[in-house]
Amino acid sequence: MSTVRIGVIGAGIMGADHVNTLHCHVSGAVVTMVADIDVERAATVTAGVPGARASGDPHALIGDPEVDAVVIASHDATHAELTVAAVRAGKPVLCEKPLAPTTAECLRVVREERQTGRRLISLGFMRRFDPAYRELKEAIAAGGCGAPLLSHCVSRGVSSAPGATDELSVTGSAVHEFDTVPWLLDSPIEEASWHAARSTGTITGLRDPQLMLLRTADGALATVEVFLNAGYGYDIRCEVVGERGTLALAGPARVITDTAGARSLGHPADWRPRFADAYRLELQAWTDAIVSGGPCSLATAWDGLVASTVAEAVITSMKDGGRSVAVQVPEV
Amino acid sequence: MSTVRIGVIGAGIMGADHVNTLHCHVSGAVVTMVADIDVERAATVTAGVPGARASGDPHALIGDPEVDAVVIASHDATHAELTVAAVRAGKPVLCEKPLAPTTAECLRVVREERQTGRRLISLGFMRRFDPAYRELKEAIAAGGCGAPLLSHCVSRGVSSAPGATDELSVTGSAVHEFDTVPWLLDSPIEEASWHAARSTGTITGLRDPQLMLLRTADGALATVEVFLNAGYGYDIRCEVVGERGTLALAGPARVITDTAGARSLGHPADWRPRFADAYRLELQAWTDAIVSGGPCSLATAWDGLVASTVAEAVITSMKDGGRSVAVQVPEV
Amino acid sequence: MSTVRIGVIGAGIMGADHVNTLHCHVSGAVVTMVADIDVERAATVTAGVPGARASGDPHALIGDPEVDAVVIASHDATHAELTVAAVRAGKPVLCEKPLAPTTAECLRVVREERQTGRRLISLGFMRRFDPAYRELKEAIAAGGCGAPLLSHCVSRGVSSAPGATDELSVTGSAVHEFDTVPWLLDSPIEEASWHAARSTGTITGLRDPQLMLLRTADGALATVEVFLNAGYGYDIRCEVVGERGTLALAGPARVITDTAGARSLGHPADWRPRFADAYRLELQAWTDAIVSGGPCSLATAWDGLVASTVAEAVITSMKDGGRSVAVQVPEV
Amino acid sequence: MSTVRIGVIGAGIMGADHVNTLHCHVSGAVVTMVADIDVERAATVTAGVPGARASGDPHALIGDPEVDAVVIASHDATHAELTVAAVRAGKPVLCEKPLAPTTAECLRVVREERQTGRRLISLGFMRRFDPAYRELKEAIAAGGCGAPLLSHCVSRGVSSAPGATDELSVTGSAVHEFDTVPWLLDSPIEEASWHAARSTGTITGLRDPQLMLLRTADGALATVEVFLNAGYGYDIRCEVVGERGTLALAGPARVITDTAGARSLGHPADWRPRFADAYRLELQAWTDAIVSGGPCSLATAWDGLVASTVAEAVITSMKDGGRSVAVQVPEV
Repeated sequence: MSTVRIGVIGAGIMGADHVNTLHCHVSGAVVTMVADIDVERAATVTAGVPGARASGDPHALIGDPEVDAVVIASHDATHAELTVAAVRAGKPVLCEKPLAPTTAECLRVVREERQTGRRLISLGFMRRFDPAYRELKEAIAAGGCGAPLLSHCVSRGVSSAPGATDELSVTGSAVHEFDTVPWLLDSPIEEASWHAARSTGTITGLRDPQLMLLRTADGALATVEVFLNAGYGYDIRCEVVGERGTLALAGPARVITDTAGARSLGHPADWRPRFADAYRLELQAWTDAIVSGGPCSLATAWDGLVASTVAEAVITSMKDGGRSVAVQVPEV
Repeated sequence: MSTVRIGVIGAGIMGADHVNTLHCHVSGAVVTMVADIDVERAATVTAGVPGARASGDPHALIGDPEVDAVVIASHDATHAELTVAAVRAGKPVLCEKPLAPTTAECLRVVREERQTGRRLISLGFMRRFDPAYRELKEAIAAGGCGAPLLSHCVSRGVSSAPGATDELSVTGSAVHEFDTVPWLLDSPIEEASWHAARSTGTITGLRDPQLMLLRTADGALATVEVFLNAGYGYDIRCEVVGERGTLALAGPARVITDTAGARSLGHPADWRPRFADAYRLELQAWTDAIVSGGPCSLATAWDGLVASTVAEAVITSMKDGGRSVAVQVPEV
Repeated sequence: MSTVRIGVIGAGIMGADHVNTLHCHVSGAVVTMVADIDVERAATVTAGVPGARASGDPHALIGDPEVDAVVIASHDATHAELTVAAVRAGKPVLCEKPLAPTTAECLRVVREERQTGRRLISLGFMRRFDPAYRELKEAIAAGGCGAPLLSHCVSRGVSSAPGATDELSVTGSAVHEFDTVPWLLDSPIEEASWHAARSTGTITGLRDPQLMLLRTADGALATVEVFLNAGYGYDIRCEVVGERGTLALAGPARVITDTAGARSLGHPADWRPRFADAYRLELQAWTDAIVSGGPCSLATAWDGLVASTVAEAVITSMKDGGRSVAVQVPEV
Repeated sequence: MSTVRIGVIGAGIMGADHVNTLHCHVSGAVVTMVADIDVERAATVTAGVPGARASGDPHALIGDPEVDAVVIASHDATHAELTVAAVRAGKPVLCEKPLAPTTAECLRVVREERQTGRRLISLGFMRRFDPAYRELKEAIAAGGCGAPLLSHCVSRGVSSAPGATDELSVTGSAVHEFDTVPWLLDSPIEEASWHAARSTGTITGLRDPQLMLLRTADGALATVEVFLNAGYGYDIRCEVVGERGTLALAGPARVITDTAGARSLGHPADWRPRFADAYRLELQAWTDAIVSGGPCSLATAWDGLVASTVAEAVITSMKDGGRSVAVQVPEV
């Protein structure tokens, strides 16, 4: 097999983005089908992809003989069920994070995959493919800055999506950090606490920004700020403090402007321009692994379970006065 | 009076630095005397200042008729006693931080000054005069970034002084942040907690780096990292996150070097080059206030008491599992 | 046609890089053949590409029925002849710069293409696809900084290739600037002069760095520094100064390191990491245009002729005391 | 003598700034008199300085028994005459640049000073005292980047003063570079040429920006851009390219702002905030040298003559088609 025929479930912003990336920028990938409960929306997306069909039925897509592998970018609540369906159909599946909103559901998905005896599920923690994060991880591993002791992580966005809640800030946004921190520091998170800052007045009923403290098995401490309504731009920062030095992501701006009294560098408006390369490289690595039948470097269902477990500990802390909560990953 | 005759107590690094700054860079200041329990050391310092006398007795300096005002840069343990002596002599005194190692002693000093009915004591929280911190404070006050919600503060040094302890990291280093945060955010600290990160292996018996969380009366949350043995340089950072944007200190490097595969900007080796301007402007403001008899813009004994109270709360948290501790400033 | 079968001529660094990019990262591209006068070298490159054949005969590759389109990355001296052969075979060809070492040869190639009545030739001025340069061009066109008045361009490398000469610095390196400057400023270069700086002592017999002044038809002036043996890294800079502000490329570093007394950002070691994205996007655009039969956004043979004409003017200035030389593009 | 009684001639922006700096920030300096042909303006300035007298007669100031030393910040056309008067009065004099508008007049001043057998004249090339330029010079001298080969200098301002001419851009603004370049590179300028870029449309009748090429005796080449109406801010840049690396001024911003889609760093509005420290340190060094009777580290009348000679060569080039003009410093 030299090309993979891919079906994409979900024709929203993320799904449409994946279809476009797969079609235009991923070698060996052919998008053959797009499913969305709103079939019109699916059709709009397939309009740009010669030969691709639109469907209103995700399960039909999963079972379609012209679909070798499945990308799931539909509503979070559907992730677990559709992932399990793909697994049962014996097809590789790339599920957008989170794997499921609860640990219990994640666990069920992990167990389903276990039973097949195959690695079929990949999880869309795309930061692992971002060139800047990769360089950061390599530099930490190279050891020039010594053992990591602390990490400072910041996730800021322009404005929260409709329906944002304190819990969704954790499960939908902070969850990226719950995967990134142990991946960078090479040690699992064992303890977490949650702390509210004074909330922004630009949105009511949401505690935003939030601050979390994470502690790894190695004892390293990470501060995580999540601020969905930061207003000024989409801004992801990460610094790792080691015994002999620190390593941090540089900003992504490509052009410097001197005008109107200031030097300025633009911030991305949202996550798509910031992580376009990460998505492309993730989808390429996924496609390559399917074509070659070799090992797949994407995050696994297990990684998704672990991140959701941390999220649950953080939410427990949120509801219990900010106390420190142990992270206990269930046995599979 | 157009010049102030100043006596400096303590001829260590800080004292010698103050003598030099006063003599070479402060308009209206004349250093007439330097006292140190090691009179030889005092004499080494006065050697560069025509007309200045050396003494082995700080109290003699305080009482000397050719000393109009006193700078105290001797050992921390002597600050309270010498400050009280200067107050009793009716002389303006600039005491290096901390005012005293304990809140109780700070309180005693504040009360002594109260009784004179005059403002005589200034405290060496020199960051208030650092041009970068001042610009930061003005930008916060200007309001373009909205109300402050969060602040991230970092204090890193190359290596800790001999005799460093977990408590001294708080009372000697973090104390600057305890003054800076409420000064910048314009709201007192009401709550504090302390959290150990994995400690650096470069020094034994010290929990370093440390992380603190501070909460102001307005509800803003500040993270404070203090890392005495960061190794790579002296690095002070501060970011304030507001509702519509953030403000942060830019780095102090003046020259960019491209060499050996990298672009680099030097870090100061210690606090002196970083805060040379702050010390100069602080000493100038102090001298000007004495000459003019007008109000003095330096931190007060009360500010020193408040910062020490925060430090005590942090140390209580340190000894009690990192729990959140209320900051209660005693009544004067 | 949904995929393009591509033959690559030249299995050196650049050719091997193109084969790898086409095979791994370009959607719709299939590398079917690699030719090099050293057939072993060609075979080493095809070893990583299932189904690709190696050849020692570039002309056999051009005529091969399984080759739809040709990439030329062989020695500069062969570019013109092989490009003409591909044109005569009626196949789209992407020729690495320069199109030919002399204007006369460039002209012959342009005329050959003219006669076919088709646009078959693309030239590898890959900077036009670099995301940073594109953003710079868009920002200039957006007009926020006003009409461009000046531009400052810098091309520095670690060390010159064996056989470097003063002329090759111009035709091989500065030529990128001769394409970039008019492309950015949207006005052709009409005048050029060449100026030697004091030469580096690290290599003998080469005038390095060199400085050039270019003037566009609009009157904008560009300074171009080319320094092949800059030693410290591969560093490409560009600033455009307009009536109300300036625009410049930001550095490409992704990670900031604080260690050993300095904050540092790494420079790429050579052009490949710096322009990896540019090459990928250029090859993707080329492949897409062939697949779709639509217009091709790459530089043309005419662009290559124009850049070579500027290079000749610069070399005339070099040999004639740095005087200003008019750029006269020959009629086709 | 432990204090110097200083008279300042010129109560315009520059003079008022010097009076304020001397009075508030220079140890050992006492401003006793301010003279301006507009005596009201002088009185406004002295109002803030207890004990200082205002005068309408510069010559009276020079001759006043309470004036030990003279600062000249009056109109450029008066510099030479007043400097000579101070020299004849045997008083140290700090003259703002330029020493005189023409080389001939500069020469006359240098000769007057020669005759006294004393070093009395200092010239206000304050960049020599700017901490960033000094660090740059020290780093060049330290040799880590190898011998200097090239330098790129940029002087941009918001808008030109009324009465700006092409020549005044050279004698009033570029002249700073004519002093800075040889001071940094430690080699005199031997050759210069002038090149007009397309002029900004924001002001008529002025060729702005201008570009100059300077060559030192060592063969190093410097590009100098002077753009008086750059609009966006006051921006002084300098990069020195050596055999093994480059050194450049970092920007002076102290605060980083993230707001409204961009990260930004403010530019100074004009030269005063940018060079406030340079002026202070220059005036302090001048005062110290007078107090101590020791050598004075400021630029000399000779330095002023040399810079004016370069300016004349540049203007000759401007009027003669941009040809390269030799710089010939007259014999004294």
